This record gives sequence, structure tokens and C-alpha cells, in this order.
Amino acid sequence: MKRPIHGGNLAWAAARVGCSPSLILDFSASINPLGPPKCAIAAIESHLDDLVAYPAPDYYPLRVALSQLHPTLNPDWILPGNGSAELLTWAARELSELEETIILTPAFSDYQRALRAFNGRIRGCFFFGEDGEDERLVSTLSQGGFCPKVIINSHKQIPKPAPTLPLVSGKRQGLLLNNPHNPTGQLFDQASLLPYLEQFALVVVDEAFMDFLPPDQQQSLIRWVQDYPNLVILRSLTKFYSLPGLRLGYAIAHPERLQRWQKWRDPWSVNVLAVAAAIAVVQDQAFQRQTWDWLPAARSHLFQGLSSLPGLHPYPSAANFLLVQSEHSCSQLQEHLLKHHRILIRDCLSFPELGDRYFRVAIRTQADNQCLLDALKDVIS
Amino acid sequence: MKRPIHGGNLAWAAARVGCSPSLILDFSASINPLGPPKCAIAAIESHLDDLVAYPAPDYYPLRVALSQLHPTLNPDWILPGNGSAELLTWAARELSELEETIILTPAFSDYQRALRAFNGRIRGCFFFGEDGEDERLVSTLSQGGFCPKVIINSHKQIPKPAPTLPLVSGKRQGLLLNNPHNPTGQLFDQASLLPYLEQFALVVVDEAFMDFLPPDQQQSLIRWVQDYPNLVILRSLTKFYSLPGLRLGYAIAHPERLQRWQKWRDPWSVNVLAVAAAIAVVQDQAFQRQTWDWLPAARSHLFQGLSSLPGLHPYPSAANFLLVQSEHSCSQLQEHLLKHHRILIRDCLSFPELGDRYFRVAIRTQADNQCLLDALKDVIS
Repeated sequence: MKRPIHGGNLAWAAARVGCSPSLILDFSASINPLGPPKCAIAAIESHLDDLVAYPAPDYYPLRVALSQLHPTLNPDWILPGNGSAELLTWAARELSELEETIILTPAFSDYQRALRAFNGRIRGCFFFGEDGEDERLVSTLSQGGFCPKVIINSHKQIPKPAPTLPLVSGKRQGLLLNNPHNPTGQLFDQASLLPYLEQFALVVVDEAFMDFLPPDQQQSLIRWVQDYPNLVILRSLTKFYSLPGLRLGYAIAHPERLQRWQKWRDPWSVNVLAVAAAIAVVQDQAFQRQTWDWLPAARSHLFQGLSSLPGLHPYPSAANFLLVQSEHSCSQLQEHLLKHHRILIRDCLSFPELGDRYFRVAIRTQADNQCLLDALKDVIS
Repeated sequence: MKRPIHGGNLAWAAARVGCSPSLILDFSASINPLGPPKCAIAAIESHLDDLVAYPAPDYYPLRVALSQLHPTLNPDWILPGNGSAELLTWAARELSELEETIILTPAFSDYQRALRAFNGRIRGCFFFGEDGEDERLVSTLSQGGFCPKVIINSHKQIPKPAPTLPLVSGKRQGLLLNNPHNPTGQLFDQASLLPYLEQFALVVVDEAFMDFLPPDQQQSLIRWVQDYPNLVILRSLTKFYSLPGLRLGYAIAHPERLQRWQKWRDPWSVNVLAVAAAIAVVQDQAFQRQTWDWLPAARSHLFQGLSSLPGLHPYPSAANFLLVQSEHSCSQLQEHLLKHHRILIRDCLSFPELGDRYFRVAIRTQADNQCLLDALKDVIS
């Protein structure tokens, strides 16, 4: 089996160790360890009879439920998809009609997949890297002045120079970024992204991990979508609600754009169990609060623990994962953790800008995180 | 709500009558009334724990299971999809690179959706229509000599002139057809399709309803796929196994083509519950036999019943649905059946070649079929 380019490939990990996938403790996919919420499973179980019918292609009740998460929007501004990855495909279809699309590197590799599917021209804008031992959190710019303001945890703002963009005069360019950024965990100040809405022909912001921040700390661009028809926001439900196997995401954008995508894609892309689960979970405020309570403390504990290990340097993160710079070979660390502890971490070999000296770990429960720390201590010492 | 362009839109029907969708007796979607098999529901229930992990993007165990349905193929020749509609999208992506694609009209409307998504040029080839009252089953050719041999029920062959194709010299053309044909229910002799594999740059055969025929009566082109890298076959699991809400289809084609599609599409398009259900159902030989036993008798009963009603003329069909020509307005029939009997039939208004004088009905259980016949009798008389 080929080394996977995404986290969460338990089949690959299990084959390497020769055990069942369910025995692997997975830190490689950034999934909420508290879920899925009980209401999701109950909704699925009570809707098994729906399987005999096609989903209604307009997914109206689902769009209504999702609009309740975003009170400024009516359902016409929302399009559910078979995971946000499906919607990324159609966003990339439109980005590819432009002369080029800028992505912030290191970038989630699925962006390249989607853009290449339509022969889109990609221009990587190196945004994260090492500027010396002292400043681990850097927004360097190799190709011009793209520079959104970075906020990490609790709105601690790190001042940055004013944004200048790598715009080539007269070119119609697209911008595809995620906020919080994956794999670094950095959070961009929403106000600092606004100038790009004026300057790029199409801006696609993947907010797959935004819901891990409590509402008052989110830096979402959703509030701007009605002012900017060139803005598309992608959201996922399956990371926060721990249902990646079910597939459910949604796009927020101008209704005309979403109607166009709906005409392009197949009419029944979201399965009926995902519909039922989604309608249930978006109303589960107890689960939402529980997650927002769990994350900061668990992240802080794991961050401290990793920092105390020799040769490991985690980066501050606003999301439910940590990027870690390592003085040890990470593929060797990964191999050892897998073979001796059945723990899977995400190597960064698929990010050319990071390579073998970085790995990414999800933040899990305190007990799981301690297992990881103990195992790492065992490997490193 | 807009009138739907596909069958099976129970939400639309229920809204018109003001009842729950589950109270509608649905003849509009062509779904096996015997399913879903118990093993499918059991597999889903026992794999709910899998929802917390991503599906492995290579879907290897699923491809192995599907290859058992087609003993001449190894798993590399199979690509599962989120319904065959997802795979049609990628087939259309390739067809659209050709100068034009021929579709047999009246055609399943999703073909036009998929081709238009990529600005593909479509050339409709009128294949079914009325040549007078006596010959209801006609393969007329408005634009040249496309003429596959038609077989209906039990290999009764209707002789046809030798195939001549509407090929324009020097053009690279694609062909997209379904076998059995929807909405007419006609079955093409596989041998009669072979010349097109030599002449078209890409031939996509949608065999979504082929599994309703017992293996010895199927006219599948699967056996030719290893000889013709320009052949793609689309299959569905959700019609035969009554799981359209779950979404699962697969493509059979040369591994290089399928690898290309896999690079284009999102990596996790098939949900884990669909994987579990599919692996279970393909092994359920008892359910398969039961379906093959049910269909001919039920179809014959419904055909006879419809034929005996004044002004209704069903066409012979090899599939699990019947196209019916009607001397009454079918939208009025539909409205009446819905309001007074909570029965939904498929109008043919979305097929411009058919219009208001045709409707399509699924073949259901003997009892359901009798309900339809009684209701029609009530409406018509």
C-alpha cells in the first residue's frame, strides 16, 4: 500500500502493524474525540427506512437546519455537499476558469487535486516556514506581499505589515485558503482578509475547522458573503461532529453561484443518513458547548507536554490539531509509534515545504493525549 | 416547489397532497420493492462505529467485493462512486473533451446535466417514437443510421437493419447510452453494440438496470472492457438493492482511466455505511434470486392490467419499469392519482420527445401493482 497523502488512513496503518484498524489510536485525522453526539447515531438509526427513497435534490429541510447555525443567512445561500471535498471540486471548477489561483503553502493537498482536475493554474504562496530558531511562527512571503494578520488562541494578535498582494496587474486571479489554516493551526483575522475580496476575482475560504472556536472567537467571513458575490465559504460538519465516514459539508455563497453548482453536480450527492444526522447535530448545543470547553484545556496540555520533550517544538494553534517541528526524523517517529504503541501521527511528507522534520497531531481526550506523550517520550529517549 | 425532473421526489409529491412522504405509494422511482435486503440494514447497524473515521480512499475491500460480481475482472477495473451519478460526472468530463457526444433520446435527463457541466456538445439521436398505431416499439433514426438491435424480454429479438452510425468523418465522437434503456425499458443486444466500440472515441454504457435481468439474459458489455480501453460501463447497486438514499454505484473501465478519475474526484466520495452495505448485499444470492423470480411475473401482470385499461398502451420492457402511452393527459392522471390515491407515477414532461401522453411506472409487488391498476381504473372510467 502506498503511503497515504491524507491523515486518517487507518487501513494503511493497520496493514503496517497487522492489526484491526479499530485498534489504532488515531492522531492523524483531526476529528473531535468527544463525538459523534448521541443524537447523530439516534437520527441515523431512526431514518434507516428512508434509504429506500432518493433524497430530494433541493435538500430543503437540511438547508433550513444549516441556516439556523448562521442566522444572517436564508437557506438559498447554503448548498450541502457530500463532504466539503465535493464542494471544493466545484469551487475549483470555477477557480480554474481564472488565469491562476493562489494557495497558501503548505496547503491541504486536496486543493491541488481539485484545481488540477480542471487544469487550473496554481501559484503557491509560501506563507509558513522558518525564519530562524527564535521565531517559530512566521508569515514569510516568497512571492510578494500576501500577508493576512495571524491570530492565535484567544485573539492574541501578532502585528504584521499591511497586506500587499502578489497580484499581477490585469490578471484575473483566484485565492484559495483555509482559516484556521491546516496544517499549521494558524487563525487569520477576518478583517485582514477583507482587502482580498476587493482584489481577487474569486475567494474561496475553507473554514473546515472554524467551528472548533467558540462563536465569539470565530474569524469567519460568513458575515461578508452577502456583500461579496465573489466569496465562497466551505464548511464541514464531520470534523466537529466526528462523522467523517458519513460525509457532509456545505458551501455558503451567492444563490446564483450555488444554483450553478447544483446544475453541474449530480442531483443526489448527500445521502439521506447524512441529512438526518446533520439536522440533529446542528441543534445539539450541549455537544457544542462541551467541545468548546474541552479544546482549550486539552490543547494547552498537549502543547505543554510536547514542548517539554527534547527536540519537539509545537506551534501555537487555534484549531484542534498541532503542527510540531521535530529534530528527529518524523517518518521514523511515526513508524515507531505505530509499531510499538499503535498510535498513528500525521507525517508531513506530502507537504513539500515541511517534509520529514514536521508532524501533525490531532488533539484528543486528556487520556489519549497522555498516551501520545508517554509513547513519544519512550521513542525519543 | 418546482415539478421535479426525476422520479422519486416524494417530498414534492407529499407537499402537493399535504401528507407525509412515507404515505405515498411511489411508482415514479424504479426501485426494487423487495428490498433493502436485511443484510444491508444489519451491515449498516453494525458499522455505525466506523463513522468516526474517514473511508480509505482506495476502497480496496469494496472493490474486491464488487469484483466478485464480475469474475472476469480484478479490482483495478472497478471504481466505486457516490451513486453512479457521481461517476457519470467524470465520464461526462471525458466525453466533453470530444467534439460531440451522441445520446439516444428520449434520454435520462442526468446525461444532459453531466455533459453540460463541462460544456460538452450533445447530439440527440431520436431512437424511440411512434411509427403508427400498430408498431409501438420502434427504433427510428432521425439523424442517420444508429440502430442497435433491440431485444425485449426473454431474448425475443426484433430484426433491425444493419447498424449505420451518424458519424461525421474525422470527428472524434462519444456515445452515451443506457442498456436497458430508460425510460423505454428496451434492451439492446450486446453484439449489436460492438461496432460502436470500433467507431466512437469513447462509449459510456449506463447499465443501471442490467442487474434486474438474470445473469444468462443480461446483455452487458462488461466482458468487452478488457479489449476496449474506450469503453466505460456504469453500474448502480441502489436500484436492485433498494438503497437509493445511501448512494452507491461503480464504474468498470480500464484501470488507467479509473485512476485518472480518482485523481480528479474527492478522495472520500463513498460513505462508510454504503461500503458496509455494498459488501454485504453483493453476497446475498437469496435476495438476487428472489428478485429475478419476482420481476417477470409482476411485470407481466402489470403489463396485462395496463393494456386492458382504455386508452393506455404499455411498451414491452426488459427492466423493472414500464413506459405507458396514454390517450389521457398524463399530468392530469398523475394529479388525480396523487390527490385521491396517494400514488405517484412518473410523468414524462421532462422528456421533450414524450411529453404529456406518456408516463412511466415502476414494477412493484403484485399487491401494489393491483392498487395502481384499481386507482387508474377509477381515474379513467
